[in-house]
Amino acid sequence: MERRKVGILGATGMVGQRFIQLLHNHPWFEIAWLAASDRSSGKRYEDACRWKLDTPLPANIAGMTLMPNTPEGTPATELPKIIFAALDSDVAYELEPRFAAAGCAVISNSSAFRMTSDVPLVIPEVNADHLALIEKQSWRKDSGGYIVTNPNCSAIGLVLALKPIHDRFGIEKVFVSTMQAVSGAGYPGVASLDILGNVVPFIKNEEEKMQEEVGKLLGTLSGDHVAMLDAPLSAHCNRVAVEDGHTECVSLKLRTPATYEQMLEAWAEFAPLRGIHEGHPLPSAPDQPVEYVDQVDRPQPRLDRMRGKGMASTVGRLRPCSLFDWKFVVLSHNTIRGAAGAALLNAEILAMLDKLPGGKARSQNVPVALKA
Amino acid sequence: MERRKVGILGATGMVGQRFIQLLHNHPWFEIAWLAASDRSSGKRYEDACRWKLDTPLPANIAGMTLMPNTPEGTPATELPKIIFAALDSDVAYELEPRFAAAGCAVISNSSAFRMTSDVPLVIPEVNADHLALIEKQSWRKDSGGYIVTNPNCSAIGLVLALKPIHDRFGIEKVFVSTMQAVSGAGYPGVASLDILGNVVPFIKNEEEKMQEEVGKLLGTLSGDHVAMLDAPLSAHCNRVAVEDGHTECVSLKLRTPATYEQMLEAWAEFAPLRGIHEGHPLPSAPDQPVEYVDQVDRPQPRLDRMRGKGMASTVGRLRPCSLFDWKFVVLSHNTIRGAAGAALLNAEILAMLDKLPGGKARSQNVPVALKA
Amino acid sequence: MERRKVGILGATGMVGQRFIQLLHNHPWFEIAWLAASDRSSGKRYEDACRWKLDTPLPANIAGMTLMPNTPEGTPATELPKIIFAALDSDVAYELEPRFAAAGCAVISNSSAFRMTSDVPLVIPEVNADHLALIEKQSWRKDSGGYIVTNPNCSAIGLVLALKPIHDRFGIEKVFVSTMQAVSGAGYPGVASLDILGNVVPFIKNEEEKMQEEVGKLLGTLSGDHVAMLDAPLSAHCNRVAVEDGHTECVSLKLRTPATYEQMLEAWAEFAPLRGIHEGHPLPSAPDQPVEYVDQVDRPQPRLDRMRGKGMASTVGRLRPCSLFDWKFVVLSHNTIRGAAGAALLNAEILAMLDKLPGGKARSQNVPVALKA
Amino acid sequence: MERRKVGILGATGMVGQRFIQLLHNHPWFEIAWLAASDRSSGKRYEDACRWKLDTPLPANIAGMTLMPNTPEGTPATELPKIIFAALDSDVAYELEPRFAAAGCAVISNSSAFRMTSDVPLVIPEVNADHLALIEKQSWRKDSGGYIVTNPNCSAIGLVLALKPIHDRFGIEKVFVSTMQAVSGAGYPGVASLDILGNVVPFIKNEEEKMQEEVGKLLGTLSGDHVAMLDAPLSAHCNRVAVEDGHTECVSLKLRTPATYEQMLEAWAEFAPLRGIHEGHPLPSAPDQPVEYVDQVDRPQPRLDRMRGKGMASTVGRLRPCSLFDWKFVVLSHNTIRGAAGAALLNAEILAMLDKLPGGKARSQNVPVALKA
Repeated sequence: MERRKVGILGATGMVGQRFIQLLHNHPWFEIAWLAASDRSSGKRYEDACRWKLDTPLPANIAGMTLMPNTPEGTPATELPKIIFAALDSDVAYELEPRFAAAGCAVISNSSAFRMTSDVPLVIPEVNADHLALIEKQSWRKDSGGYIVTNPNCSAIGLVLALKPIHDRFGIEKVFVSTMQAVSGAGYPGVASLDILGNVVPFIKNEEEKMQEEVGKLLGTLSGDHVAMLDAPLSAHCNRVAVEDGHTECVSLKLRTPATYEQMLEAWAEFAPLRGIHEGHPLPSAPDQPVEYVDQVDRPQPRLDRMRGKGMASTVGRLRPCSLFDWKFVVLSHNTIRGAAGAALLNAEILAMLDKLPGGKARSQNVPVALKA
Repeated sequence: MERRKVGILGATGMVGQRFIQLLHNHPWFEIAWLAASDRSSGKRYEDACRWKLDTPLPANIAGMTLMPNTPEGTPATELPKIIFAALDSDVAYELEPRFAAAGCAVISNSSAFRMTSDVPLVIPEVNADHLALIEKQSWRKDSGGYIVTNPNCSAIGLVLALKPIHDRFGIEKVFVSTMQAVSGAGYPGVASLDILGNVVPFIKNEEEKMQEEVGKLLGTLSGDHVAMLDAPLSAHCNRVAVEDGHTECVSLKLRTPATYEQMLEAWAEFAPLRGIHEGHPLPSAPDQPVEYVDQVDRPQPRLDRMRGKGMASTVGRLRPCSLFDWKFVVLSHNTIRGAAGAALLNAEILAMLDKLPGGKARSQNVPVALKA
Repeated sequence: MERRKVGILGATGMVGQRFIQLLHNHPWFEIAWLAASDRSSGKRYEDACRWKLDTPLPANIAGMTLMPNTPEGTPATELPKIIFAALDSDVAYELEPRFAAAGCAVISNSSAFRMTSDVPLVIPEVNADHLALIEKQSWRKDSGGYIVTNPNCSAIGLVLALKPIHDRFGIEKVFVSTMQAVSGAGYPGVASLDILGNVVPFIKNEEEKMQEEVGKLLGTLSGDHVAMLDAPLSAHCNRVAVEDGHTECVSLKLRTPATYEQMLEAWAEFAPLRGIHEGHPLPSAPDQPVEYVDQVDRPQPRLDRMRGKGMASTVGRLRPCSLFDWKFVVLSHNTIRGAAGAALLNAEILAMLDKLPGGKARSQNVPVALKA
Repeated sequence: MERRKVGILGATGMVGQRFIQLLHNHPWFEIAWLAASDRSSGKRYEDACRWKLDTPLPANIAGMTLMPNTPEGTPATELPKIIFAALDSDVAYELEPRFAAAGCAVISNSSAFRMTSDVPLVIPEVNADHLALIEKQSWRKDSGGYIVTNPNCSAIGLVLALKPIHDRFGIEKVFVSTMQAVSGAGYPGVASLDILGNVVPFIKNEEEKMQEEVGKLLGTLSGDHVAMLDAPLSAHCNRVAVEDGHTECVSLKLRTPATYEQMLEAWAEFAPLRGIHEGHPLPSAPDQPVEYVDQVDRPQPRLDRMRGKGMASTVGRLRPCSLFDWKFVVLSHNTIRGAAGAALLNAEILAMLDKLPGGKARSQNVPVALKA
């Protein structure tokens, strides 16, 4: 089967590198275009990039020439219609709409448009139905293009853990205190003098993002916008000396009481894509989106971040909270499930739903099980 | 002026080493006796100890012979009447009462007797009046000996920050999530394979200790016991790759509203020992027990743990909490203010109050300002 | 094809865990027996072991019962004839001969017998012919059992890099300074207080092991023993805050001059198992045992240790030495190529050579290309 | 006694901050002027600087206004005649001569002019006599100004350890492999993603600097230049996850044999400034410039870098080398003895020698013992 051509905006950064790693040998997509800022465009990828992952830079990518990061910089016939965007948010703010206007599906990891009312902010297992918002975007009507976003790296693992609980018992209040990995800040990002033997109890805008994004992700699609979940969340965000993997301590107040067993059951049975999976599995979707680990001192970033190939959210230490109902720890890989893998899974579900521009649907059998 | 002779139980461990470091050239106390477990007793200190501090082992200590860790192991005339105890809690449970029965003031850093009703659990700036409980101890009546304890390393910094707020506005609920240094687990303690590039979201019994000790520290002396503060606290305790310094994220619900300025004022004006200080300062008491730092990304363990020579509690990032009233970050040095320094300050205030056995009071002028 | 049953001695330690990880789904071998010290024997594996790897403990292993670590502790019919041994050297000294005497091929990672004259110390790509020494062992004659060893984790990567150079130009002198990962010390091993923000410039017996093992590995089989290579090596061994991967700085004096290109060529063309590979590849052998990386700041443990699935030795920074001829950096994974993977590759080549007791040869076609 | 006014060029960087810390309450010098690049000049120091040291920014410095980093940017009467320079080498190359031409003693930590023939490269305990070179500088003749430099952070500790050995036995060849702290790269400097759980076996130009600077430091003053020591040195330089403190493994070939005791004696008796010390100690000079530690696993950066208030070079693990004569480990604090403290000590000896412009000599009694 022929694979669809995709491009990557911001291909040399940390998230761009993860896109390349995850798209290497992907069954549905093929990297056909890489773009970078003016400083790097025109160079060979391997010359412009300081590859920082522990798998080798694929040989076919190494020699590709970096294109300018505008739609006009590439002949229209060679611009892929599917663009993964790994841009800083101020750059994204300017560039992503131009690609959408040029007819591209912009699958964005940036925060620039996450809270825009007609832009879906999506985790496929959580709120795939919000993807319907793309039809409200003016670009979609004009050119077929649109923007879809995934949440902040600190929100994704948390929301995956909250969703099955919310569906059964209702989330009323959430305390969360994070210990976030340095890779979340990109490269060079966090200076070693700031983090060796240290904790930095501040990440710019992170607490605000968590608070608002969780509300939209667990909110309800209502015509042309999402009605936010009305459940206050208070976040404390910290940077720690961990390379990859965000660990979060959570206290939860529910609308309806839940027993210990019911909590575990909610997570264990959470498999919203399973209907799709059986016939047409999304290649990047983990079998078990939320894994519960029993050991008393888990999850830990070094040991658990790669569960589900980096796409699972791992939960542990469920115990009563003396203020709210339950407390627990949740962990997820911040540059896979929290960034490039999140966007890739968004693209996969869009493919499944036949919403990707520029080609036939991958399958005629759109799954009935899916809410969207 | 002659210095009082003191001894150290558990002298070779991490906290024992801190006692030696802090007592070196202390104006009131002089190390006259060191004890260790059977394995080490009889050896020279420098041969039995792996000194892990970054100041040199004092030469006069290096050659001292380690005594057995029982009162009977030393001729009565040579056993100091003031014993700093840095023992594991199961050992403390057995040994500390024996020293108290032998007429010693046991200034303990262990958790063994912290919650015992007639044993004071004290931070001098917070609840020096609780020291009156020693008069209720049977040992005190029989031999003059007693046990006094200081709190867990994760509770001290927090309670110092809570106390001035509690005095003015009343603490109603506390959410706290800690990021604790490895030195808190002693030596060898945390294995490097467990903490390099990692977080361990569990410390045995730590959450329970924080919850109960805060209640006793902020509680009210009521005859022969302390009436616990009725304010639920929910703790999430984590170990991170930091050598020294516990960082804690706190959300606080107050009984009476407080403005931002009132919160800062409460901390800035907190100087409960100042009355004492002017005339007869306690050598280890910091001028400013709670320091507030303005920078947006502080406090940080590597930069702030040594404020007040390791005896201050540093607070920062005061901001509104969407669930409770206020949230902030608090940091303190876990083996100075959180352990050896805490015990030393307890001994100093006991000296000031003329409650130490085995000698004249340091001063006739017991300060009237002190509540005890 | 049926897989041979194998056992693991010392199955719960760090190297034991790597054996389990590497043997999971191995095409030739199947774990049938796990043993541990008295403290753990009789327990289920998952209850006795603190699994510290980032891939899940295989489910079929988790429930296996740990056997006593003596041959007599298991009915003779159920004791596998192939035993991977991951024991501390004092324990190995006592136990390994007992398994050899019981007819087992003991594939040992311990240092206990490495320098014993009739025990082969082998890296298959370097000195597979030394395996002939097993025929000199008395156990072999009596019961069919024997002991084969692999080198110390700090010697393997270095010798892989030296071997092709030695074959072409002759090694005359070697200066090496190591920066070794904490996993090399096992679990709990290095205390976090010793290594966070620190370097420990000492590893017990390590410098001695490197010096003598390199001489034996590059030595010449001469009847019933190995004539050691006469080329002095001076080692400086250090522990650094790295989880996995030993980095070594090397200066080399050659017997015959070599150009930069000749050095690179020697490494690039080094493929001693390729003759075997084509027909019957050893499952754990890397295609390229020595990989040279061009980037100026490589190899680095975090980025390069997994080359060749952790079985390659990565070399970089070849440049002239102002004292000797050339200097360079070499890196290898210390618990894969440096321990469990090394032993496993030894077992694979023994299988290929039809030297494993207890069953038919895997193949009749013993490769003529192999020197052994 | 009145203190001389001094200035700091590059005052906001890591080394600039150390200058401020070390000059705080200095008995001879007083900070009167701070300069920074265009981006920061005109700002208050505390607003322009991210203070990264663990002692508080002195209050009197916090409010000082940063001046432009040129001599013309400050009225001549207010420009101190003693300028500590902590500039990147390309900036130093342009600016330092301008300050020398304006009559200032430029006490530089930069590499820009270290190897210039009439610029002294000095460690006071090693080659104070080289300071005579300043009289050969044209600036000195014209305006009284000059440039004096201290060595690279990786060379200083090593040369302190080599000097007493060289004086007695002659250094013939040196191997050195370094493990250098991240603070040596300034701030932000080394990215955390590059060093957490990692080693970077490359520091730009560092090996070259060590090789040439050691030759000049141990060289012989010969009229208008220094005749370099003819003893080849081969350096391997590495960056490790340590905040402060460079650890170096050294192998040494001597011209004359030395016993173990003679080596220790040479270090123990090394006190070249002692003659000066007795009467007029240099405030920053350590009593014992080279300290030998007996423990088998020392020196270690976290435990030993602060010996001599960060100004000592600590040596340990002296043992025979199978290639050369002796090997050992040497450690020194890279931003104190290796940078700001080194420059400060240079200024102190210049003061003692009455070579500082702009004022009376500190003392009429120039010590006869000093070779200069």
